[in-house]
Amino acid sequence: MTDLAHDYLDLDGLFTTEELELRDRVRAFVQERIRPHIAEWYENAQFSREIAREMGKAGLLGMHLSGYGCAGRSAVEYGLAAMELEAGDSGLRTFVSVQGSLAMSAIHKFGSEDHKQRWLPGMAAGELIGCFGLTEPGAGSDPSSMTTHAERVDDGWVLRGAKRWIGLATIADVAVIWAKTDEGEGAASIRGFLVPADTPGFSATAIEPKLGMRASIQAEITLTDVRLPADAVLPDARGLRGPFSCLNEARYGIMWGAMGAARDAYEDALAYALERRQFGVPIAAFQLTQQKLVDMVLEIQKGILVALQTGRLKDAGTLRPQQISLGKLNNVREAIAICREARTVLGGNGITLDHSPLRHANNLESVRTYEGTDEVHTLIMGAAITGIPAFSAGPPS
Amino acid sequence: MTDLAHDYLDLDGLFTTEELELRDRVRAFVQERIRPHIAEWYENAQFSREIAREMGKAGLLGMHLSGYGCAGRSAVEYGLAAMELEAGDSGLRTFVSVQGSLAMSAIHKFGSEDHKQRWLPGMAAGELIGCFGLTEPGAGSDPSSMTTHAERVDDGWVLRGAKRWIGLATIADVAVIWAKTDEGEGAASIRGFLVPADTPGFSATAIEPKLGMRASIQAEITLTDVRLPADAVLPDARGLRGPFSCLNEARYGIMWGAMGAARDAYEDALAYALERRQFGVPIAAFQLTQQKLVDMVLEIQKGILVALQTGRLKDAGTLRPQQISLGKLNNVREAIAICREARTVLGGNGITLDHSPLRHANNLESVRTYEGTDEVHTLIMGAAITGIPAFSAGPPS
Amino acid sequence: MTDLAHDYLDLDGLFTTEELELRDRVRAFVQERIRPHIAEWYENAQFSREIAREMGKAGLLGMHLSGYGCAGRSAVEYGLAAMELEAGDSGLRTFVSVQGSLAMSAIHKFGSEDHKQRWLPGMAAGELIGCFGLTEPGAGSDPSSMTTHAERVDDGWVLRGAKRWIGLATIADVAVIWAKTDEGEGAASIRGFLVPADTPGFSATAIEPKLGMRASIQAEITLTDVRLPADAVLPDARGLRGPFSCLNEARYGIMWGAMGAARDAYEDALAYALERRQFGVPIAAFQLTQQKLVDMVLEIQKGILVALQTGRLKDAGTLRPQQISLGKLNNVREAIAICREARTVLGGNGITLDHSPLRHANNLESVRTYEGTDEVHTLIMGAAITGIPAFSAGPPS
Amino acid sequence: MTDLAHDYLDLDGLFTTEELELRDRVRAFVQERIRPHIAEWYENAQFSREIAREMGKAGLLGMHLSGYGCAGRSAVEYGLAAMELEAGDSGLRTFVSVQGSLAMSAIHKFGSEDHKQRWLPGMAAGELIGCFGLTEPGAGSDPSSMTTHAERVDDGWVLRGAKRWIGLATIADVAVIWAKTDEGEGAASIRGFLVPADTPGFSATAIEPKLGMRASIQAEITLTDVRLPADAVLPDARGLRGPFSCLNEARYGIMWGAMGAARDAYEDALAYALERRQFGVPIAAFQLTQQKLVDMVLEIQKGILVALQTGRLKDAGTLRPQQISLGKLNNVREAIAICREARTVLGGNGITLDHSPLRHANNLESVRTYEGTDEVHTLIMGAAITGIPAFSAGPPS
Repeated sequence: MTDLAHDYLDLDGLFTTEELELRDRVRAFVQERIRPHIAEWYENAQFSREIAREMGKAGLLGMHLSGYGCAGRSAVEYGLAAMELEAGDSGLRTFVSVQGSLAMSAIHKFGSEDHKQRWLPGMAAGELIGCFGLTEPGAGSDPSSMTTHAERVDDGWVLRGAKRWIGLATIADVAVIWAKTDEGEGAASIRGFLVPADTPGFSATAIEPKLGMRASIQAEITLTDVRLPADAVLPDARGLRGPFSCLNEARYGIMWGAMGAARDAYEDALAYALERRQFGVPIAAFQLTQQKLVDMVLEIQKGILVALQTGRLKDAGTLRPQQISLGKLNNVREAIAICREARTVLGGNGITLDHSPLRHANNLESVRTYEGTDEVHTLIMGAAITGIPAFSAGPPS
Repeated sequence: MTDLAHDYLDLDGLFTTEELELRDRVRAFVQERIRPHIAEWYENAQFSREIAREMGKAGLLGMHLSGYGCAGRSAVEYGLAAMELEAGDSGLRTFVSVQGSLAMSAIHKFGSEDHKQRWLPGMAAGELIGCFGLTEPGAGSDPSSMTTHAERVDDGWVLRGAKRWIGLATIADVAVIWAKTDEGEGAASIRGFLVPADTPGFSATAIEPKLGMRASIQAEITLTDVRLPADAVLPDARGLRGPFSCLNEARYGIMWGAMGAARDAYEDALAYALERRQFGVPIAAFQLTQQKLVDMVLEIQKGILVALQTGRLKDAGTLRPQQISLGKLNNVREAIAICREARTVLGGNGITLDHSPLRHANNLESVRTYEGTDEVHTLIMGAAITGIPAFSAGPPS
Repeated sequence: MTDLAHDYLDLDGLFTTEELELRDRVRAFVQERIRPHIAEWYENAQFSREIAREMGKAGLLGMHLSGYGCAGRSAVEYGLAAMELEAGDSGLRTFVSVQGSLAMSAIHKFGSEDHKQRWLPGMAAGELIGCFGLTEPGAGSDPSSMTTHAERVDDGWVLRGAKRWIGLATIADVAVIWAKTDEGEGAASIRGFLVPADTPGFSATAIEPKLGMRASIQAEITLTDVRLPADAVLPDARGLRGPFSCLNEARYGIMWGAMGAARDAYEDALAYALERRQFGVPIAAFQLTQQKLVDMVLEIQKGILVALQTGRLKDAGTLRPQQISLGKLNNVREAIAICREARTVLGGNGITLDHSPLRHANNLESVRTYEGTDEVHTLIMGAAITGIPAFSAGPPS
Repeated sequence: MTDLAHDYLDLDGLFTTEELELRDRVRAFVQERIRPHIAEWYENAQFSREIAREMGKAGLLGMHLSGYGCAGRSAVEYGLAAMELEAGDSGLRTFVSVQGSLAMSAIHKFGSEDHKQRWLPGMAAGELIGCFGLTEPGAGSDPSSMTTHAERVDDGWVLRGAKRWIGLATIADVAVIWAKTDEGEGAASIRGFLVPADTPGFSATAIEPKLGMRASIQAEITLTDVRLPADAVLPDARGLRGPFSCLNEARYGIMWGAMGAARDAYEDALAYALERRQFGVPIAAFQLTQQKLVDMVLEIQKGILVALQTGRLKDAGTLRPQQISLGKLNNVREAIAICREARTVLGGNGITLDHSPLRHANNLESVRTYEGTDEVHTLIMGAAITGIPAFSAGPPS
């Protein structure tokens, strides 16, 4: 194994010392606190509440936000942290995304000062957990068709409906719930609500059993006449623009994270190929194996370059949502391909939890789906390029 | 959904009525006895001993063998049964392959009359379970490098060594163990031994936890001074030709089985695409979804044509081992691609055990590995085409 | 090179002696009459009028038709002939398709007895050449939007419009021209007309220069007040059903032809790989090269199986048009991939006209486009599978 | 068409004003001097001697070299120029590479002061043309097996042998010829010689007809007792290190150039998709078309990021040869895929010379081969990653 094996194009030179320090710190955290346990967590489908607090202490929750106990890190730093966490497991990175990019971002962007002071410091510390309820059983790629409804009543609101695929909902202390209201029509009427998890009528059930993302929780939420005070509504969000801006935060982190999973799969395969001998030589000596490793390296380098460029634009304040789609689409798709190919290098041993590639590949199937499938991002980009939206392009109804 | 959706090229017309009857009977068995339980078996990583007996009663164990309670079915019929079983789960088809194509085949081809009478009827009935010990921790694609050794002693043999990735070994009643002897040199000295599982020194431990093939058992066998009588040796097998001829039986069944898993994944995705609505239409109405379904159909039709042609050659007695490699390589590789693509049609729901494609895809990673990886079959075919073996092509040592 | 190299799955055993004899005869014709000249014809972009007559003599023109001097061969036999011809060059097979499957078929299916007697014997003999005018500059995948119009006048018809990508039009003696009439609305009004090429107002210009299909002619036809007698109209075709049934004939032949080009490219690459030495060994000894050759073999075998099954259905009279789409889509797509991969085996020499793969690959770009692009056939199959047509699926207009 | 369509990730922001100015200047040159003529040059297989002089005037020949009339531009600037030129045609960029990166580089790096003064100013001006003779009929990927030999005689040298695939050799004024000598053994004995094209015994013949790279010249050189003075030898190059360092210069330019061809193909396809209507909408409105365009954009952005990172390393003086392989392999491979996909968007019109994608795709087959095939660069990278060279990995001889 050579130095080129780990940073083929000297990409480290593109980061500042401070960025690299943060990265190395998160990498060490993953090495010490996640790797030794991840196989067990995954097999048992458990999420460690304790790890959430440790991440809080490490400054990883809502780290790109400022104030209210948040670390105020740059987009690139947030990306590097996501990459290292997902090298551990997508489930752990997902937690950080749901907590920081979705729930905390929603409160930070659209909440009242009271909302922020009430929730953000505890969430930044990992003492409180948030979730983000947008998707519904019947509304996935097309959230404008949501049916959850918030009725205005004299002293507040009543929420009714159901949400699905909501990360962490069963252990969350607070849920950001998006619902249609009677203010305006269709998607324009959507508002966000802060729902403490102990509110009567709110319940969450984990979706199980799952074949991927087992070290994280995804749940179905039922909202049965959930009564909320008038100030439960996020004052500064109206329509889908609000939740979409949170999704964009999460998508940004995903493009980094996916490369972390890919890198970990590649390094696992490389180490195995150098050690495993058949026909008298390490299997790394075979042309067919080298071809696989080389193609992995190629796409990892390209994916990191994409993530970094996107991050630099984000830090410069010029990033457009359609640009994020490129990295989300590409990096998850390529990461899946890399993890799958890494699995094949491992032979039979690659289906055990002693090795990471198949676990990563399965996790990434969730990652590929949430915050926009390949098709959704293809069509977002397609519209950006051609000027013609083709999302709802079905035959004439 | 249309009739073309399920048999696009009218392939049913290529089978005899008797073949189709058998197929439909196995399909019904899978529908009634496997589908209702498979998610649970898979999640709990359990193999149902009871199902083995039912398969015995249904005439599915060693079904291509004649006499000794075996059903004496044709190769094509065996293939169709494998396809239907694997539409249920690769783990179940694997059991049938290990029992029938590996363990029973070895006894049937190479055992003494006593061996056959002692073991085959019970195995055909599913009362006795067999396993087949060739692969070792350090000898996978290159079995000639095995180190398990059988020492000739006055009154019999003593076996010492270890085997890995041995299907069903923890619940087997008898193991066919391949070991080097002092008769001849290297691979030429390899003989097969029948080892009752209660022989002192024989032990098997399941390899767990696994990310695929969870409804079947794969194990590590340890052989610690296992003393066997003189007649424990299979009289008619010498060298790797013996185990390889069993592998070829199994590979043949795999090429059919993989298409069963693929078909099941496709049908799951198709049904979902027709029912799931987004943007006001079934997602089956989107061009991007149709493209996926069409490519699945294409490769399923092609894979079945390959399997059938191989089966007809086998029944005609002219099939050569290198020809089997084409179907094993192609059909498993394409089945994996189909299952993965089917998963994406299912959105988030595709990572639950309510849907089959991701389960199949993970199972097939084992199937892709055992009885010869993609690389091994590529090089078998490469040698057959060019006349130049390139298996051990490493740099000059 | 081994026998498996050329018929890996013993597919020859699936054909009758008579079928194989025909195939071998056409193969010999290609070997003697086409191979020695094809590089020159291709470079100079010329089509040999003489070859047309020889093909007529060899019974290859309209060979699947009966009577009127046609050979009355089966669909499978026609397919085998197409495969061998396209192993020579797609341009030659295209001539046979345009002449036999399009122009002669149209006359045979829809013409009057006079039409048949006037044109078919000479066309079968290769003395007369026909072309088939459906596509227009602005109407390709969607022929219903054609604008060529046939006006009924007292003593006959007047045609006005333009056609594009019409094979052989510049040397044709007669053109089958499809045009909208005033009988009925839209596509339902389409009728076919036999237009002798010397009719005033009819002119054809070759489309040049081209990067593929250079050994054939494709042309633009201009119809300027072309006056035809009343009986110029094909009596038995109304609407698009007529031309579509001819397209289906051509598509059927294409699926065989494409495999011929693929096989020729593969055989060229294999021979070169066995002869060309680098690093002290034939490049066929490298794993990376073997992988390429193996994947070519795989897809050729699968493609032939698809073509044969389609042909058997056709001969049985049960073939449905949607089934043809599978083979057209798959076999051309895979043939292109094979030819491209074969090119890479040839190194720099692969870009000269001494080798066939790049010539075939470029030809096949035309083949992929005419008689339905990949997208058109994907959507035909998609509609057949899902029951939902998605051809015109654009955003709401 | 939108601004994102042309610079999706705002990559322009990564270049300096000076770099962008140079790029725009070369782009304008291509627009005015190449685009209007390229179809004709290509069809007629001609290279315009006049264009060489214009490129000289524009400062594009040996532009990354300093002194002797060269422009002394940075690696990134050279890359941008290569990208723009290849957007015109690979043949034109190839001329610049052969002249500047191969022939002039060899003289600049390894020549005597006399050599430099004699040749470089005229070559920089485009008045003199150079070529670079390394590859031989029997020595391609493995140049160490070359057989051209330089014999030391009293008053100089005598060269005997043959070279193949030598760009521009038929119009070159001077050839850099690499040959084995009697100084040392095998590859270590290789020296470079400057051979004026009018030296008796030197002859060059164009390799024709070709299916790609027709607007450039590739030739076979014959060296029949070519007598050279003693000072014809390049004093500072011994062994393959010399020519390899020139190849690395060329490979670097290729990775940029390929992205130029890809971009041009994409822009052609995009413009066509927006204009071409079928089924009542622009074909750019179809999901299947958008998917193609999006994947093109993705890989173009990634390829440019790779080229830029490589260029920045080169300008920083830290670039290692193995790092260049990543960009050469990736960018040419992806460019070919992009051009091919762009072709399919164009329908039948895509096979004419009115559109660029198929021309680019065919050109790039040469580009993929010269200066190292995909396989060579895969194995260079494989060795860099694993530490194990597998180039000569054949079966034991």
